[in-house]
Amino acid sequence: MNELKGACIIGQSGGPTAVINASVLGAIQTALNAPQITRVLGAANGIKGVLEGKLYDMGMEDPVELELLKFTPSSALGTCRYKMKNPDVDPTDYEKLLETFKKFDVRYFFYNGGNDSMDTCNKISKFMEKSGWECRVMGIPKTIDNDLFGTDHCPGYASAAKYIATSVMEVKHDACCYDTGMVTIIEVMGRHAGWLTAAAALATYAGAGPDLIYLPEVDFDMDTFLADVEKIYNATGKCLVVVSEGIHDKDGNFISEAKTNSNDGFGHAQLGGLANKLAEIVRGRIASAKVRAIEPSLLQRCATHLGSATDAHEAYLAGKTAVEAAVAGDTDKMPAFERATDEEGNYKCEMKLLPLASVANFERKVPREWINAAGNNVEMAFVDYALPLIQGATGMKTAESLPRFARLRKILAQPCCK
Amino acid sequence: MNELKGACIIGQSGGPTAVINASVLGAIQTALNAPQITRVLGAANGIKGVLEGKLYDMGMEDPVELELLKFTPSSALGTCRYKMKNPDVDPTDYEKLLETFKKFDVRYFFYNGGNDSMDTCNKISKFMEKSGWECRVMGIPKTIDNDLFGTDHCPGYASAAKYIATSVMEVKHDACCYDTGMVTIIEVMGRHAGWLTAAAALATYAGAGPDLIYLPEVDFDMDTFLADVEKIYNATGKCLVVVSEGIHDKDGNFISEAKTNSNDGFGHAQLGGLANKLAEIVRGRIASAKVRAIEPSLLQRCATHLGSATDAHEAYLAGKTAVEAAVAGDTDKMPAFERATDEEGNYKCEMKLLPLASVANFERKVPREWINAAGNNVEMAFVDYALPLIQGATGMKTAESLPRFARLRKILAQPCCK
Repeated sequence: MNELKGACIIGQSGGPTAVINASVLGAIQTALNAPQITRVLGAANGIKGVLEGKLYDMGMEDPVELELLKFTPSSALGTCRYKMKNPDVDPTDYEKLLETFKKFDVRYFFYNGGNDSMDTCNKISKFMEKSGWECRVMGIPKTIDNDLFGTDHCPGYASAAKYIATSVMEVKHDACCYDTGMVTIIEVMGRHAGWLTAAAALATYAGAGPDLIYLPEVDFDMDTFLADVEKIYNATGKCLVVVSEGIHDKDGNFISEAKTNSNDGFGHAQLGGLANKLAEIVRGRIASAKVRAIEPSLLQRCATHLGSATDAHEAYLAGKTAVEAAVAGDTDKMPAFERATDEEGNYKCEMKLLPLASVANFERKVPREWINAAGNNVEMAFVDYALPLIQGATGMKTAESLPRFARLRKILAQPCCK
Repeated sequence: MNELKGACIIGQSGGPTAVINASVLGAIQTALNAPQITRVLGAANGIKGVLEGKLYDMGMEDPVELELLKFTPSSALGTCRYKMKNPDVDPTDYEKLLETFKKFDVRYFFYNGGNDSMDTCNKISKFMEKSGWECRVMGIPKTIDNDLFGTDHCPGYASAAKYIATSVMEVKHDACCYDTGMVTIIEVMGRHAGWLTAAAALATYAGAGPDLIYLPEVDFDMDTFLADVEKIYNATGKCLVVVSEGIHDKDGNFISEAKTNSNDGFGHAQLGGLANKLAEIVRGRIASAKVRAIEPSLLQRCATHLGSATDAHEAYLAGKTAVEAAVAGDTDKMPAFERATDEEGNYKCEMKLLPLASVANFERKVPREWINAAGNNVEMAFVDYALPLIQGATGMKTAESLPRFARLRKILAQPCCK
């Protein structure tokens, strides 16, 4: 093994999750304990902090506060959506990164993000290699969308899925207790893949699920949708729909972005997203129903209070594994999850390493056979997949019955070299 | 004491809460154990079930499932928003009630609801007295709005408040992790009183609260609001606003219902409620900000998973006290809460009984002195009031890490008399 000594940078990118900080904690604690790593730096707002040399010294943090990161939502180091150019076209950003790496003697770079971030990692890795700056670059997966390629599931997904399943169960109870007609439409995040929306099927499994579930994996047809809703409403006086924000028609146009057309019921300016739009259309069709749109919005990706212990644990492991693998000599890879079973046949998650190039820019979707033939509900095969992932209550700490989230000092690190 | 023997009816009315079933459980269990009560009947969809003689025999329920009612959201017996006419104008409904009471030998009536329901109770009580049908009528308070008169607080409020406080803390973390400008507006229920919206101040107390809070107790001025947001946004690049759905201008017009006027920024059809409307207006003013509207909608009143143990316990006691008091001879009253302190100076809740006439049709609002002078935030006095109420984690049962809510048989009761 080639021992490489130097500082490491850990950064977070893209939309946060309920457990992205658990991954960062896994990486930080492992790095702080690794003799090869001389200093553990946190990038302020992801790659932007690296470009600007704005790095926090994670060794200066109170270990007790750090520990709270395991159950603190959002990206504690800050995040960004900055997209770096292709280095072959414009290497400016990459040269800046190299400058920061040299100034802080950075030999390890860990980037915690989704699809785009794995691509960024891959490009940085190649650039550093070409530049002759020895450096190991590892991606750490996260996304509530669960659409990363090559991994059984993604850290962050299960906690969001648990939030959706639980909230749908609670709303189902609420929306069905009146004696009057009611249609309720819940809009779930996931622009291209329906994993999170499908989590509503867990509510069905637990006895209080929606009547209809629409994923972006199946083309959405407004007339069929209205007929589906009407059929259930006419039979029961209620209808609970869970729909992905990313549903689109057969030509690929997002329903949420459908143009105003006063003839087809789409006739209103879009203020409140897809659920509100669908609610408006249903209102025009079923006059006797009270129609309500619910968009949990950010709540679904930051609800640490309802997180999955399994998810938090696996997220931590992903961060830990990335650091351990890099220290052991790996680079240009991402830890991923492989589903296995223990001796008693129970779910077990095993870690593996994937080359970043095999992950970046691919999207994993819900298999068509896990969606029913009519395209308006989800099959038991999905429940079998998702149920083990949401197990275990959150370990979120509380003080006076309110969340006690980590409070970091965020002390800026000084460069060690010129 | 005049011992009165006969059946009782327990009904639920109005919008549900996370703990309204805890009150019903308190009433049912106490009634099932009371020798004076011959049969415990649950009204299907509140007063409408009584009018139609559609009553469930609660004695036929599995006690284990009944017990789960303590942490099952929504109104398990079903609810309604049916408003009975004034009996002096049209006694038809009251005569129908009397018919049901006679058919089922009902001598006790317990109605679990808000303001309107207390008024209904009061009218029923008077009508029965006039008709010569001996019957004891008790209200059992519930409302997330916390606006019932004469009680320190209302069952259902604290659980919703805890949900709002926790969710605001989580959203605060999420909405502040980007390096880009962001304004987030959260809309909270409460048409006339700002108690639930004020709960966002608990998030501030716990270290992650909103920048601005607007309650309906203070007239809302759009220009002042925009200036408030802009000032904070310009200083920090972020602004988190929590606003009551019931805010109104100085003439009493709801902001959510303000008419379209293309000159003042209000220029859009309302699809998504107040938060979306305010977001649209802020977008027009602060071009650099991403502006997001979040409306937790039903989630805030049915989130049993995040309920307050104190609230559930007190809700149970309210139901229990109503039955005990009625059996002991009381009628035309409502159990209410009085705040006290135990020997160690800690919060304690004591039960008292209020005449229904003193409760019905009054509204209790947030005291002006608990709101800051500028009318855009809430003072510590409110936190002192609300904090004891949200204490204790929910006792919600789970199965495979998903809620295990009560499943009632709902067996219809047969009349015992002609």
